[in-house]
Amino acid sequence: MAVSRWDATVLTLFPQMFPGPLASSLAGKSLNQGIWTLKTLDIRDFASDKHQTVDGTPFGGGGGMVLKADIVAAALAHVAEAPGPRIYLTPRGRLLDQQTVRDLAGQPGAVFLCGRYEGVDQRVIDEASMMEVSIGDYILSGGEPAAMIVIDSVVRLLPGVMGKERGHRDESFENGLLEHAQYTQPRVWHGIEAPAVLASGHHQKIAQWRLAEAERETQERRPDLWEQYLRAQQE
Amino acid sequence: MAVSRWDATVLTLFPQMFPGPLASSLAGKSLNQGIWTLKTLDIRDFASDKHQTVDGTPFGGGGGMVLKADIVAAALAHVAEAPGPRIYLTPRGRLLDQQTVRDLAGQPGAVFLCGRYEGVDQRVIDEASMMEVSIGDYILSGGEPAAMIVIDSVVRLLPGVMGKERGHRDESFENGLLEHAQYTQPRVWHGIEAPAVLASGHHQKIAQWRLAEAERETQERRPDLWEQYLRAQQE
Repeated sequence: MAVSRWDATVLTLFPQMFPGPLASSLAGKSLNQGIWTLKTLDIRDFASDKHQTVDGTPFGGGGGMVLKADIVAAALAHVAEAPGPRIYLTPRGRLLDQQTVRDLAGQPGAVFLCGRYEGVDQRVIDEASMMEVSIGDYILSGGEPAAMIVIDSVVRLLPGVMGKERGHRDESFENGLLEHAQYTQPRVWHGIEAPAVLASGHHQKIAQWRLAEAERETQERRPDLWEQYLRAQQE
Repeated sequence: MAVSRWDATVLTLFPQMFPGPLASSLAGKSLNQGIWTLKTLDIRDFASDKHQTVDGTPFGGGGGMVLKADIVAAALAHVAEAPGPRIYLTPRGRLLDQQTVRDLAGQPGAVFLCGRYEGVDQRVIDEASMMEVSIGDYILSGGEPAAMIVIDSVVRLLPGVMGKERGHRDESFENGLLEHAQYTQPRVWHGIEAPAVLASGHHQKIAQWRLAEAERETQERRPDLWEQYLRAQQE
């Protein structure tokens, strides 16, 4: 498989937030290696009046400000050549999960629209058929930290970013379960012994223990995932 | 109510990632105003050998590295005076939601432990009775971007951070529903008219429309939330 670059394009009112945490560790190293690229555009550059107005009060009142459709449309038109789906980060969107992350990693890139204030005029989101994505059921000050989350999760799946010794198979969500707990040296710490089976060298027993643990913990911690897992097992 | 400071303490192997996006916009402004504080500690400073070892291979194999219990315990002991719950960011944790964010905003602060690699030896998490929190069902390169998400969502709820004109009541999740769509000037954009009722000036009709829209969209986009909402209505 040809290793191709993944291009992230971010439309934001706060371009100075980027690359932020994406400049360090796995994401930063692979950015420097050219495995992925990051381009930010300041939405304010697409304002056309002398006050650089980008937003207006919401129809119907309620406080806060809404990004104007024409400003966002102009910004999107400016990056028409940028590859990948157009993603609007919003708590109204569909929940990000590991399958969506994998799908995005298989694209040549993605364009992220980061809202602030009260969001974006819905007409431009609908007209551009943007993919509305939420990273979770909580409210952020804007879409920028959410875009960083999506980019970080995608980048680590790109070819060449993670070492080969570790597949992605054993991780949380890759098989619909939470990952089992992890332990390292020393075997006894503060009087607590790490599970003996893990030091047995018996690969099959270790795999069995880990699966049983992953199942037990998923059932206990995330009954919603556990139900989905059981349903998938029956199919 | 006395306005008190909220203190965020972050244990990380990448302290240079902070404040990152938290230096700008709402979070940055309120950080400068002293409404909240941010202290980062480098976990590597708690290594005791000459190689500054902080991790070891996982018992049972599988690749990757696991942060050692004694290193994490030493880092936690060093910040024993820091206020608030001890939070370990992990995909194995309980899902962050807006209620948890509100609870955290009511605390005097929080201590965040950011894992990298394959995570943290489970014994120190259990011994310290850490709160295990996940921001969503996807895998990040580490806990740092997740800690930023939690901090950003909490900070905007602190007294003095958001303007008074906008309560939190009308937002997504505050009433168990997604927020209704937003629109601003012009009334007709690219031939699409904003919903006429919103410009009617009739407050009661606007409120009714927004609730109906929020209900319709929640039902369509998030059947899981919709079921919870219906159940709560019946109680």
